[in-house]
Amino acid sequence: MKVGVLGALGKVGAEVCRAVEEAPDLELVAAVDADDDIGALLTAGTEAVVDFTHPDVVMDNLEFCLDHGIHAVVGTTGFDEDRLGQLRTWLGNAPGTGVLIAPNFSIGAILMMRFAAAAAPFYDSVEVVELHHPDKADAPSGTARRTAELIAAARADAGRDPMPDATSTALDGARGAEVSGVRVHALRVRGMVAHQEVVLGGTGETLTVRHDSMDRSSFSPGVLTALRAIADHPGLTVGLESFLDLD
Amino acid sequence: MKVGVLGALGKVGAEVCRAVEEAPDLELVAAVDADDDIGALLTAGTEAVVDFTHPDVVMDNLEFCLDHGIHAVVGTTGFDEDRLGQLRTWLGNAPGTGVLIAPNFSIGAILMMRFAAAAAPFYDSVEVVELHHPDKADAPSGTARRTAELIAAARADAGRDPMPDATSTALDGARGAEVSGVRVHALRVRGMVAHQEVVLGGTGETLTVRHDSMDRSSFSPGVLTALRAIADHPGLTVGLESFLDLD
Amino acid sequence: MKVGVLGALGKVGAEVCRAVEEAPDLELVAAVDADDDIGALLTAGTEAVVDFTHPDVVMDNLEFCLDHGIHAVVGTTGFDEDRLGQLRTWLGNAPGTGVLIAPNFSIGAILMMRFAAAAAPFYDSVEVVELHHPDKADAPSGTARRTAELIAAARADAGRDPMPDATSTALDGARGAEVSGVRVHALRVRGMVAHQEVVLGGTGETLTVRHDSMDRSSFSPGVLTALRAIADHPGLTVGLESFLDLD
Amino acid sequence: MKVGVLGALGKVGAEVCRAVEEAPDLELVAAVDADDDIGALLTAGTEAVVDFTHPDVVMDNLEFCLDHGIHAVVGTTGFDEDRLGQLRTWLGNAPGTGVLIAPNFSIGAILMMRFAAAAAPFYDSVEVVELHHPDKADAPSGTARRTAELIAAARADAGRDPMPDATSTALDGARGAEVSGVRVHALRVRGMVAHQEVVLGGTGETLTVRHDSMDRSSFSPGVLTALRAIADHPGLTVGLESFLDLD
Repeated sequence: MKVGVLGALGKVGAEVCRAVEEAPDLELVAAVDADDDIGALLTAGTEAVVDFTHPDVVMDNLEFCLDHGIHAVVGTTGFDEDRLGQLRTWLGNAPGTGVLIAPNFSIGAILMMRFAAAAAPFYDSVEVVELHHPDKADAPSGTARRTAELIAAARADAGRDPMPDATSTALDGARGAEVSGVRVHALRVRGMVAHQEVVLGGTGETLTVRHDSMDRSSFSPGVLTALRAIADHPGLTVGLESFLDLD
Repeated sequence: MKVGVLGALGKVGAEVCRAVEEAPDLELVAAVDADDDIGALLTAGTEAVVDFTHPDVVMDNLEFCLDHGIHAVVGTTGFDEDRLGQLRTWLGNAPGTGVLIAPNFSIGAILMMRFAAAAAPFYDSVEVVELHHPDKADAPSGTARRTAELIAAARADAGRDPMPDATSTALDGARGAEVSGVRVHALRVRGMVAHQEVVLGGTGETLTVRHDSMDRSSFSPGVLTALRAIADHPGLTVGLESFLDLD
Repeated sequence: MKVGVLGALGKVGAEVCRAVEEAPDLELVAAVDADDDIGALLTAGTEAVVDFTHPDVVMDNLEFCLDHGIHAVVGTTGFDEDRLGQLRTWLGNAPGTGVLIAPNFSIGAILMMRFAAAAAPFYDSVEVVELHHPDKADAPSGTARRTAELIAAARADAGRDPMPDATSTALDGARGAEVSGVRVHALRVRGMVAHQEVVLGGTGETLTVRHDSMDRSSFSPGVLTALRAIADHPGLTVGLESFLDLD
Repeated sequence: MKVGVLGALGKVGAEVCRAVEEAPDLELVAAVDADDDIGALLTAGTEAVVDFTHPDVVMDNLEFCLDHGIHAVVGTTGFDEDRLGQLRTWLGNAPGTGVLIAPNFSIGAILMMRFAAAAAPFYDSVEVVELHHPDKADAPSGTARRTAELIAAARADAGRDPMPDATSTALDGARGAEVSGVRVHALRVRGMVAHQEVVLGGTGETLTVRHDSMDRSSFSPGVLTALRAIADHPGLTVGLESFLDLD
């Protein structure tokens, strides 16, 4: 597959270029940045683009791609319902062309959330621990909150009881924060990057799902997975999880 | 649901009795052992039995249950194709009645294998580490071998390349055993019971799924899950995984 | 060494008997419980006793042992300064005889605390995570609090700065409890027994020390270690750590 | 303390410059590379240097420093007995001046080895697991081998029995490599950097010491620790561990 990268000189875009070049089944045919002519995509015979640019330009980029039947894998932010509606309209005129809008390309984070939610109804107890570098401003992380909400929803669907907890004397904060009834603990430790562990337990056994993101390059396998799948998913898809064939 | 336990005085059976009694939605109405009359199941209005008895008696037990429309959750071993065929015949005359034959009631072990296989195609590398007490005779464990085979099959289906490994100088055994192309490492450590970790890694991130079985009572949540689901699964089912609604 | 056990029919005492019998270098010569004559220790030629009895009888037991030059390893609780003073007096008349009073015989817990305190000055960040079964009443555990205090003291001695933490938006409790400036997080998970992890981190690296206690029998290696060392430690010792040759 | 860096334009040297500049108690006064005049150290009033240069030039660098009473923290390789003897001679004429030659500045790796050896005599079983990226040529790692040797020596000193292992049926390699009687397992997983876990176990409990090196910058805390301690260690020291006050 012939791939073009939009935002090729950005930190993420440059890493995507590198990853595409290293993949034996993908060919980097166009690396386009703000000052370049997007028409280079056509000359190069681009079949799919990756867009990590800016909310101000991404819609123009996508209109151009869909006009020319080029699939798009998009990590740029700022997509509201209006923009998604506009994309659907354009896609209506571009049968067979696919667009993926994904807020998170970390396959590991997606799998961790998925597995945690799938396992949660089978266990009495589920808690979330996340560990990040100490320069992070929010606690817990957005991923940890989202994980807790998915766990809570899965348990509610299954009609599970609240989790057992006989704590009667506790120091303030010892049992963590409560997100939809799920306890979440946030560590801030120098040397850590972005890590999360979901601990599930029942009589006599525990199950732990842990995701360690050591490096910002961890989005690139998700981008490659999306590129390989985009031609089989015409129309609009939101969220990489739909491309991961997990069932 | 009114539950009877066959083999109620055995180590496992006694633990099942205790677990059923503690479950708010299940009622233990009959605890039957070798010297007791199995007819007690009828007097008590038993709707489902759990059978952890012996290969010599389990078929008689099941014939009795199916004659009387009692569902059965069976952990007794020794089921070959002949026996499964016989069960199917009996079940043909007992519409609406369900029998589950399961070699492993550990939900954690089943989920770990399932998640490992589901995640394996998305990662460059997957290895298995199992840790057991040092009195164990075989290495690696049966569960670790089975996990490796499931990982290998999932990667083959997805057309994944062999895993990267630049090792050119190694001490004998350092890289573990190879099971269907997947490296498996077995630790034997006093104080351990039965533990397994599947480590998956791609560019910049790793995902780890770990199962810790601390106690032999870890089969009981699986038995309760089976009891709660058996009425919705008429006919013969082999393997608890079919009862875990994971998709 | 010829060993006697006082409180031999208690849960802990019985386990100690079993462990002494299995140790090749120790011989169980007397198993004494409440209704037995303590004189049996003499007849059997006892060189050292293990006492897991009751605060009401332990002082009488120890007076008898010290009168006869028998070393004592004591796990019974209730020792205040008065009692320790009395022991010192008796030991003054029993040269060469040793008594160990220990609140905790878990070697792993002692080593974890020791290592955490030793490493703490070298790292920017240190946090404690403890995991217990959900029937536990207090959070965090006594061991976790004690660990945090030892970490704080070691850092204060080394003149370390407070730990970095840029958190500006947090859910209540997300960052755990603060014990002497050290963050402590308590998980309550069915299937867990007693576990603790100390996570230390500096630029580009982390160090983790984890203790897993799977079973109440985990005190027995500490008791055996104490028995093997008691003859070399005449006089009164408080705390098993003094017997662990760690420097 | 006024610090100079020799090899300031190298990858490691540049990182050391950055770390010294960020440390509130250290001042970077001279950054010298191959083409610069080493005399700049004197003009700047340098009290201590860090040398990450090359075996061909390091002895000239050190002669210059010792002539002028400048302490030296050295990560450059290639020191044999001849070179160490030469250094001792020069130091004889430079009373009060200190030189540290260290093959490894990772405090975490040093602590892990130290703790593993200290704990090993108290446990029945000890095994080592190391995890690295799949581009590594040797298995197990040098650190894992060294750890195993230290564990074996500590157990021999304590007169410990060989470790229990009832394995009678094993796949080739399943139980890892044997280094001085200690089992070592090497995983090669994309996304990993350099990680090692020592697992120790006795009746009912386990202790785990884990070191995760996520980034090559992990040597810098060790260099800073050495700079802060060098003035208190006149003469020649080999190995950073002597500067870590662990007892």
